[in-house]
Amino acid sequence: MSRVYLDHNATTPLCAAAKDAMIAAMEVCGNPSSVHAEGRAAKALVERARAQIASAFGADGADIVFTSGSTEGAALAMIGREMHGAALEHDAIRAWSIEDLPVSAEGRVEVADPQHSTLQLANSETGVIQDLPEGLAVSDATQAFGKLPVAFNWMGATMALISAHKLAGPKGIGAVVLKRGTDITAQIKGGGQEMGRRSGTENVVGIAGFGAAAEAAALALANGVWERVAELRNMMEAALAAESSDTIFVGNTMPRLPNTSCFATPGWKGETQVMQMDLSGFAISAGSACSSGKVRASAVLTAMGFDEMTAQSAVRVSLGPETTETDVLRFAEAWCVKQKKHRARVA
Amino acid sequence: MSRVYLDHNATTPLCAAAKDAMIAAMEVCGNPSSVHAEGRAAKALVERARAQIASAFGADGADIVFTSGSTEGAALAMIGREMHGAALEHDAIRAWSIEDLPVSAEGRVEVADPQHSTLQLANSETGVIQDLPEGLAVSDATQAFGKLPVAFNWMGATMALISAHKLAGPKGIGAVVLKRGTDITAQIKGGGQEMGRRSGTENVVGIAGFGAAAEAAALALANGVWERVAELRNMMEAALAAESSDTIFVGNTMPRLPNTSCFATPGWKGETQVMQMDLSGFAISAGSACSSGKVRASAVLTAMGFDEMTAQSAVRVSLGPETTETDVLRFAEAWCVKQKKHRARVA
Repeated sequence: MSRVYLDHNATTPLCAAAKDAMIAAMEVCGNPSSVHAEGRAAKALVERARAQIASAFGADGADIVFTSGSTEGAALAMIGREMHGAALEHDAIRAWSIEDLPVSAEGRVEVADPQHSTLQLANSETGVIQDLPEGLAVSDATQAFGKLPVAFNWMGATMALISAHKLAGPKGIGAVVLKRGTDITAQIKGGGQEMGRRSGTENVVGIAGFGAAAEAAALALANGVWERVAELRNMMEAALAAESSDTIFVGNTMPRLPNTSCFATPGWKGETQVMQMDLSGFAISAGSACSSGKVRASAVLTAMGFDEMTAQSAVRVSLGPETTETDVLRFAEAWCVKQKKHRARVA
Repeated sequence: MSRVYLDHNATTPLCAAAKDAMIAAMEVCGNPSSVHAEGRAAKALVERARAQIASAFGADGADIVFTSGSTEGAALAMIGREMHGAALEHDAIRAWSIEDLPVSAEGRVEVADPQHSTLQLANSETGVIQDLPEGLAVSDATQAFGKLPVAFNWMGATMALISAHKLAGPKGIGAVVLKRGTDITAQIKGGGQEMGRRSGTENVVGIAGFGAAAEAAALALANGVWERVAELRNMMEAALAAESSDTIFVGNTMPRLPNTSCFATPGWKGETQVMQMDLSGFAISAGSACSSGKVRASAVLTAMGFDEMTAQSAVRVSLGPETTETDVLRFAEAWCVKQKKHRARVA
């Protein structure tokens, strides 16, 4: 039987629109900074993608600065600024924040000083969605963009981070979106690309893929794709809950991303589950995809007050627009078999 | 008639090997940091490319840290270190260096303190090749890699910067190559990818293209492709010199990149030449491809002691492995026609 990929929050398969745009962009050889016809053609691809992203992200009139992804975006937006953040943010944000914002048991963050704070729009592990306070300095919208009806111009943040590979675009390209007139200090300097905010020859193929993926994602969202995905996610959770009464579904009383399920089965290590499900043909994850080989409890769950043992026993299942009912039911069945074996072993 | 692209030092058309590798990589959906099968497949693509690049760049046993290109690579290698450099370096290097190394009239740089200095291997505008002193801290090998028989393990530098799009790979991917054990401080932090030196989900498609392009470039170099290109470049220079006696061929008495010709025709602005040749069907450049719209004299030529007027009158023609004799002869003919018209106008 073919494998089932249920790790869309780690990264997504490229959509057809992104692939087509990338393959077409491969034929455009110019450097966007060159003034000749070949350069102008490359520049046009970059600017077309910028417009597609602005439209999909509700960011008309905002500035979009292309980066190599949200990790670089976080550095660009946050280095040298004293910004408050919570322990449930992605490591790329945590690297630059003062980690003092309180997290509730439901995974919601209280922001005292929005102008000097960062807050994600949705959590990568639990899918829990935050209410962003008006005037927030930086929001990591990486997981939300494409899955939630969100418009930068209405979300209250001065800057947002987005990344193509979370919405069926390529890995290695993202952007910082800024209200026009916002000051940021370039971290990568040289040729003065991106209005001097991020130098370096543009990743034209990746940018073209990002633009096409953003456009396709906005259309799919408007067409209700994620409502069907949420039903499948809920169906899967119900199937697991019916068999495993001690499994905790994290954040399931809160507004969540439609595709994300995080559940802990205390005593059964998340990494073990990931490996067992991998051998059974299912790709899921324990916590964020980070540098491989790390073995540790989910920082997101410990920030929410879960004990170490429970936090180590969590896995994340994240669905995509192509996920089918058969996929989630097969997964639930396979997981329940393993869970019973685990219970028998430790009994 | 079809256009002739003679701006390969700005960027190159993707080679077939890079395209094929990128299209194949598009089908691999995993995140290289994920431990499941999909993740491991993506990781394998990244590591295969790393090995291809190490082999092509003579860097077996060295560390290769992927970046979004040499501009980011320069920041990673140089930020926070007081490094001496010359005014003929690329702007991405100049952004971080103390600009006090003397440049000779032939474009050669004298390095007093290699361990605290940066020196390019070849100049992007003139093609002039430098002798690197043993123990040099950082060398920008961006223009040299793929065109010159160079091995990192023998070049004397502790770090080197390379970029895919100068050797028929994609734009937006490059690397810092380091002698093993060399300390660098991560500028982009988060998930801990690239052994903690450069976080962020890897640009898998771009990396696959870089690896394939590097392998193909090394093979082409070994097969003597650039010797033929150098002959075409020399043929073109001879044709121009025969018609325009006041044209200065910069660096042509020095060891140069085989594909590069930089020539100044005092009084005829480089940008004007670029536009006129563009309209005639030829893509060339005036100085480095930088952020578009900049109008200024070549910093490389002024560093070599040329006066402002001459430096403003320079253009760069850079050939590629696909350039034909017809291409360069057609260019020479078209340029000479325009040059005569220019002379008639100012006479």
